[in-house]
Formats: sequence, C-alpha cells, structure tokens
Amino acid sequence: MKFSPPPRWRMLATPASRTLQDVKNSCTGESSFDLQSYLQFKGVAVNAALDEALPMRYPDKIHEAMRYSLLAGGKRVRPILCIAASEMIPGGTQEAAMPSAIAMEMIHTMSLIHDDLPCMDNDDLRRGKPTCHKAFGEDTAVLAGDAMLSLAFEHIARCSAGVPAERVVRIVSELGSAVGSQGLVAGQIVDIACEGKEGVDLDMLRYIHIHKTGKLLEAAGVCGAIAGGASEEEVGRVRSYSQAVGLLFQVVDDILDVTKSSQELGKTAGKDLISDKTTYPKLLGLQGARDYAEELLAEAKQQLAAFGESRAAPLLALADYIAYRQN
Amino acid sequence: MKFSPPPRWRMLATPASRTLQDVKNSCTGESSFDLQSYLQFKGVAVNAALDEALPMRYPDKIHEAMRYSLLAGGKRVRPILCIAASEMIPGGTQEAAMPSAIAMEMIHTMSLIHDDLPCMDNDDLRRGKPTCHKAFGEDTAVLAGDAMLSLAFEHIARCSAGVPAERVVRIVSELGSAVGSQGLVAGQIVDIACEGKEGVDLDMLRYIHIHKTGKLLEAAGVCGAIAGGASEEEVGRVRSYSQAVGLLFQVVDDILDVTKSSQELGKTAGKDLISDKTTYPKLLGLQGARDYAEELLAEAKQQLAAFGESRAAPLLALADYIAYRQN
Repeated sequence: MKFSPPPRWRMLATPASRTLQDVKNSCTGESSFDLQSYLQFKGVAVNAALDEALPMRYPDKIHEAMRYSLLAGGKRVRPILCIAASEMIPGGTQEAAMPSAIAMEMIHTMSLIHDDLPCMDNDDLRRGKPTCHKAFGEDTAVLAGDAMLSLAFEHIARCSAGVPAERVVRIVSELGSAVGSQGLVAGQIVDIACEGKEGVDLDMLRYIHIHKTGKLLEAAGVCGAIAGGASEEEVGRVRSYSQAVGLLFQVVDDILDVTKSSQELGKTAGKDLISDKTTYPKLLGLQGARDYAEELLAEAKQQLAAFGESRAAPLLALADYIAYRQN
Repeated sequence: MKFSPPPRWRMLATPASRTLQDVKNSCTGESSFDLQSYLQFKGVAVNAALDEALPMRYPDKIHEAMRYSLLAGGKRVRPILCIAASEMIPGGTQEAAMPSAIAMEMIHTMSLIHDDLPCMDNDDLRRGKPTCHKAFGEDTAVLAGDAMLSLAFEHIARCSAGVPAERVVRIVSELGSAVGSQGLVAGQIVDIACEGKEGVDLDMLRYIHIHKTGKLLEAAGVCGAIAGGASEEEVGRVRSYSQAVGLLFQVVDDILDVTKSSQELGKTAGKDLISDKTTYPKLLGLQGARDYAEELLAEAKQQLAAFGESRAAPLLALADYIAYRQN
C-alpha cells in the first residue's frame, strides 16, 4: 500500500492550525456535509433507542447497573457507523440498521465493564464516573456484562422485523465472530500477554488493534451494510473501509498521546511513553506514524468511491474526522 | 395444579428400594426404552460436535481455557434435551437441533466459569479439576466466558444451514432471553441478594430456580422444538414440559441433600442445612417437597401426551430419570 498524500493531508502534521470548519470543508471536497450536526442528530436517535431497548425491570439492581453503563454517554461511533453504512446502500435505512447499531453499543459497553474489573485493568473511573463494579460490586458487574452481551444478540433477533431473516442470521454470525476468541477477546488476550513485554513488533501491535478495537468497528459497518441489503461486493468494500478506519483510529490515538497536552486530550498525555507501551510512533517514528495514518485514510476513502460522493458523504466525513480529531 | 399420584410414584419416598432397572421399566410404562444407552449414544455425538465447534487456534491460551472448561465432561443434559425435543417433532432431526444443542452447553459452561470466579462463588474445584480461573487466571476466565457466550450465538447462526432462517432467528431470540437479565442472570442476581437472608419464601425460591437453572433448560427444549419445525402449540407443550422438568431437577436436588449420605451423592450432603440455605424441604417439609416433585413430574408427562408415547419416549424417560435419580 504505497501512497503519496496530496498536500492538504500534510496538515495532519500541523493539526493545531486546522479548525473544525476546515476539516468539515476538506472532508468531502466541495460538498458542505455537516458532520457535527449529523453526529448529533444520529446520536439522539441512538440514545433514544438504547434507552428503549433496556427499560428498568425487576430485578432492579442488574437493570440499574446495565443502564448505568449503557446510558453513560459516549460518542456512539459504532452505532452511527452502522446506520451510516446502511443508509449508504440504495434501499438501506436507519430503521433496518438500528437493532444492529444498538447491539454494537451494548457489546462495546460489555467490553468496557469487564475490562475495568480488578482482575483486568482495575479502573475506578470511566468517563468521570465510578466504573460499574465500583458502583454496583464486582459480581453485579460480571453479570451485567454477560446480560448485556446476550441482550445484544436477542435484540437483533427480536427487533429486526422489517429485515429478511437470512440477513439477520448473517448479522448474528458476523457479530458473534467479532466478539469471540477470533475477535475482540483475541485482541484482549494478546494485549494482556504483551503487557510490559519487550520486542512487541508492528505485526503484533496491528494484531492487537485489529482485534481489540477493529473487529467491532468492522462488524458495525458490515452489519449495517447487510441490514441495508448490500451486495457481496458492497459488503466487501464497507468491510475494508471499516477495517482501515478502525486502525486509523488507533494510530491517531497513539500520535495524539505524543503530540498533545493532557488538557487538550482531556486525559493523561504521554501515558504510553511513561508506561513504556508499544505504539505506532515508537515503532515507526512520529512522521512514519503520520504517513501510515494518511495511507489508511486514503485506503478508507478509496473503498467508498464506488458508492458515489453523495451517498458516501457521512462515511467520508467520519474517516476525516477520525484522522483529524484533536482528542 | 392439584394432583394425586398413582401408587408407584409413592416410591419417590423410598428411593433406596429402587434399582436403575426398576426406574427404566417404570419410566415409560410397558415400553422398554433404554435411557442409559440413549444418554450415552447422544452424549458421544454431542461431545464430538463440541470438540469440532471449538478447535485449537491462535491465540492458544484463550482456546485452551475454553476447551478445558467446555470439554471437561458432564452429563450434557441440556444438549440432549434439545436434540430429543427436535426428534419428537415429525420431521425434526438431530442435525437440525445440534447447533442449538451445542450453544446450550456453551452457555451453561460460560455460566459455570463466571460463577466460580472469586467475586462470585469463589470455587477452586469443578468436577474434581481446578476451576478455569485457577488454571488460567481470572482475566482469562472472564474472557473465556465472554468468548464462549458469543460463540454460542455465532455457532447457531453459522452452522444451521439446513434450518429455515426464520427459525434460526427465533432460536437466537429465545436463547438470548434465556441468558439475559430476565433469564439466567436474573436468577443469579436474586440468588446473590438472598444469600444468608431470612424470610426467603416459596415464591422467591421458585423465582431463583426458574431463572437460574430453569430458563436454559426451557430454552434447550424450546429451541430444539423450533429447529425441528414444531407448531406454536407444540412449542408451548415442550416449553411447559421443560419448565416442569427444570423445577423438578431442583426440588429433587434439595430432597437428596437431606436424605442421602455424602458418599451416595458424591458431594457433601446436608450442605444446605449447614449453610442455612432456603430449600423446598425446609419450606414444605420433606413429604411436601416429595409431593411437589410428583406434581411436577405428572405435569411434565401430561404435556407430552399429545406427541404419542413412542415419539415422546426419550423425554418421558428423562423426566422419570430426573425424578428418581439417586445423586
């Protein structure tokens, strides 16, 4: 994947000079797609659907714990990616993708709840609030994660009335493989095994990211496309786009950790250096990491060309947003 | 549910006088259905399918932990119930039910792995072997359970090629609700809340059992029936049968804890009394608990009448086996 970025992508190297409006304008060439409004608009729909998908019921405690974690905020990147992929397909709708979108967020939340446990990352805070096990106890946190994971699959199966059953079955299969021992869990277990180890190379780093964060983003795009009635070729393109964007997210994360202050990031900067964690800047150098980010952004956009600029506008803008974000 | 048991069911009160052959002969009236051979035969098929469904792969550790727990033995009651329910339906086959059957055992295994964790029951041994977290570490045990749960859903979706997609979607939905915060997890969270509490009444005890052990047994029967092409009425009958058998299992467990020696049980007898746990004999008296078991057995059998004695033979025998087992 050899790629020479056009001049404006060099701006990755000087992010502070770019305003959000610059990004928006550059995102989709001449188009005036308003990503911020789009994210806000879709976010409201997703939050309402999440709230409805998990009402308070008896037994109170488990539902309180699940709602506490699921409705704690967040950018809802996975559900919005899922919906945007569906709407990019002719005939695809938000309604068809919503059950999958909700399931993506439930599974993301489950992975955060279990990741935060004392026997895993042992985190006390998540988004400025006590983590699930701090607020409800470890036993409840384990069970809340389990219930959330099974609810994700149940929700897709129960609430996809307008989607042909063959597509629903394929979505369940995609999602299952994205979470399991060849997906998210594979990334976590290899990440744990590499902790504090020397000699973690680029292949290993990529493996961890492709699985730990990439697989669920990939499933979000792919399941949205399937729900929307995409052809095999279209599913393949959305898969490649989502894979590139998933890795891009992680590479930019590593770059920001080096280049930004804690205040700008809203979290501790330089954490990776202090913890001696293997990162893309460490393995490739800062400029090498930036070049890699540009390659990934170009790859993501190239996959969308076949859909036409108008239909692909939200996903094009989302890729730019991930590449050029400041925190 | 008022019911006067015929004289031979009074033998519940004198279990020591019954041999396994007596049970087998009495199970299905005049029929000579050989349950032991049936269980052994189906068990071999289930174990082979489990082994195949979860091959060793990279990353090694997570697959070793999952296989360690999934292939650790056990009676495979849930998968066999699932297959037997499918084969009871005209047109239903073992092949159609096998993916659901495998999923039931995976979910049962997941619940055992997470139940054994230090923050839950803190058990060091399971079937005479170190528990998953003792053998592989707590973090791996949490992740092995998560991966097993998602694999269960993926396996149903990926491997049910011969089953119409509408049935597969319904099976996923049934299974999800059996595990989640209105199913198995609901039973666990209420059980934890009741631990060491006084004043646990019959309704609460039934709630715990119906959810903690009953829902997955119910799903096993129901999903088998759906996979086999059962009508709504047939699904309803299999559901009622499975619910009754699920409760029966628990009531007999409690009775055996009071009436049998540790040697006969193969585990510590009188454990419930020592731990002051609420049980059916404690709430109903020993005879009351036996009467309740007989009611449940009769209810289970009554639901099978419509299928005919020949088709229903395995499930009839299974109910008797659960009622009359000695450990």
